[in-house]
Amino acid sequence: MRALVYHGPAQTSWDTVPDPVIEEATDAIVRIDATTVCGSDLHIRRGDFPEVKPGTVLGHEAVGEVVEVGGEVHHLRPGDQVIVSSVSACADCKECRDAMYGQCRGGGGWILGNLINGTQAEWVRVPFADHSTNRRPSDLPLDDALLLAELLPTAYEVGVRNGHVCPGDTVVVVGAGPVGLAAVIVARLYSPRRIVVVDLADARLETAARVGPDAAESPGRMIAGLSEGPGADVVIEASGDPDGFVLCTRAVRTGGHIANIGTHGRPATLHLESLWRKNVTISMGQVDTSSTPRLLELMRFGRLHVSRLVTHTFGLDRMEDAYEVFAHGTTTGAVKVVLHRE
Amino acid sequence: MRALVYHGPAQTSWDTVPDPVIEEATDAIVRIDATTVCGSDLHIRRGDFPEVKPGTVLGHEAVGEVVEVGGEVHHLRPGDQVIVSSVSACADCKECRDAMYGQCRGGGGWILGNLINGTQAEWVRVPFADHSTNRRPSDLPLDDALLLAELLPTAYEVGVRNGHVCPGDTVVVVGAGPVGLAAVIVARLYSPRRIVVVDLADARLETAARVGPDAAESPGRMIAGLSEGPGADVVIEASGDPDGFVLCTRAVRTGGHIANIGTHGRPATLHLESLWRKNVTISMGQVDTSSTPRLLELMRFGRLHVSRLVTHTFGLDRMEDAYEVFAHGTTTGAVKVVLHRE
Repeated sequence: MRALVYHGPAQTSWDTVPDPVIEEATDAIVRIDATTVCGSDLHIRRGDFPEVKPGTVLGHEAVGEVVEVGGEVHHLRPGDQVIVSSVSACADCKECRDAMYGQCRGGGGWILGNLINGTQAEWVRVPFADHSTNRRPSDLPLDDALLLAELLPTAYEVGVRNGHVCPGDTVVVVGAGPVGLAAVIVARLYSPRRIVVVDLADARLETAARVGPDAAESPGRMIAGLSEGPGADVVIEASGDPDGFVLCTRAVRTGGHIANIGTHGRPATLHLESLWRKNVTISMGQVDTSSTPRLLELMRFGRLHVSRLVTHTFGLDRMEDAYEVFAHGTTTGAVKVVLHRE
Repeated sequence: MRALVYHGPAQTSWDTVPDPVIEEATDAIVRIDATTVCGSDLHIRRGDFPEVKPGTVLGHEAVGEVVEVGGEVHHLRPGDQVIVSSVSACADCKECRDAMYGQCRGGGGWILGNLINGTQAEWVRVPFADHSTNRRPSDLPLDDALLLAELLPTAYEVGVRNGHVCPGDTVVVVGAGPVGLAAVIVARLYSPRRIVVVDLADARLETAARVGPDAAESPGRMIAGLSEGPGADVVIEASGDPDGFVLCTRAVRTGGHIANIGTHGRPATLHLESLWRKNVTISMGQVDTSSTPRLLELMRFGRLHVSRLVTHTFGLDRMEDAYEVFAHGTTTGAVKVVLHRE
């Protein structure tokens, strides 16, 4: 089959590789109908994740059709339409039993396109297939379903839910990339008073404004706007940058929450000398994708509209073009790039 | 009257000053029967709190007898025995209505011995007296009552409750000063599996061991002990030191909590590059003293034994000696020093 292979820092290519096969009785093989590129794929390409070995097929989000299942897969059969979750779950370890699938110690967690071959390919082997996929209802559009594989659960679980967004809150989202803008959409479920999204890049702010925040602003303007009042009730860090994190601590009100979604490569400064008196709570974490079924239902009931997050679509064999457009989102305005089987 | 007066950085003295008088109709005047020195008093004496003006009487914890009340004090009368809380509460502002008395914007909060004259004196003016005191039952020992003015509510609210200590947890307390050791005692209420208290000073570890943790250890030994397992469920930072905070982030398990009680004068490093994937929650805050009535009842029911926290007692006029013994706790082994009217 054809797949995007990581060959080492700054080296990826669209190669011919062996088709995946069932290796464990709990595996399924899924034909990829749609996949996407994530910010963490860019981190891998830069060499920020040394655990990713050369030769690995990248990608960890997909929608497709089950083509083969192992002998211990009980809930799936060939022909089923599924969402392949970025997080694989053994469902047996202590962490999985506590719904912390992202921290699975039984061989799962985030392994697709990281420790094993991933979804930027024509087919993928999905481990623990019963617990690592969700059925895609026939009325759910392909691209909407794809955003349930990781992006929306991340924005919901790690951003909005960990940040305890409440009705009437002022919410600031730092970073207008895909996960930041997904957080804007998901935060609306809790009826906040006002959502402000912040970015340094004008192209991103223009795209951000179309997703529906109450304001899309520069950091300086956001801080000036908050200076009249107590500050933001919830600040969601979605930039992955140490300066972005410090901005969050400047924006949050006394008694407020900072929810870190950003994938960070460097330490940040925590200004405890002012924050200790401010009753601030800071959360961070990796997605569990336990919320995917709930978010899927919200989409079907018409309560969650996410199609504006997809700005660019490509055929699967244009994977390398998709990476370039996505990697230069600050100029291309790309949010989520989607690749379809043709 | 006699009182401990702050005259500027490193300058305090036991002086004769005017007796306090009723200034607002919601004030009470309380005769001090017992008071104490807090770590934040040492910060003030070092000049770390520029908002404290020269001429201010220090101290913010006391037990005593009401001697006079203003015309709008409804729940107290002369002769009542009271605990004077470190936090004054207007009870009218948005924060007070949300039980965040430590953040009161109606003129209260931590003002005693900070923005107005405090309790290290023969008498004190208590603002918003109805909401800033608790009755001391006749069967509650003087020193036990004194620890309810701030120390125990701080350990409970900011440490144990914000840190979500649960039955069966491994709890690490960083810093074996008064608030750290109070956290050891209060954490026991939640039936943890094991409590380890950590300090750099041997004298403090010796005193700490008598308060009843499962272990009193150096940082290195604590980290080595945790390395066999997943790490601590809850880590309580009670050192006020940036290195102490980083130690907390090393000790905490994936999915665990860090509760900062320490009063910090400098920023700390937050290692987001490793923590973002660990689902860690970090809380911090100033005490509200909303838990004082609950903790008082626990003492009366015999569920909370705190007398071991008081290591030194003095007459009120030996205030300066008490400061010295307390300030050198790493050699004197002092935890809580208490001063009594004679």
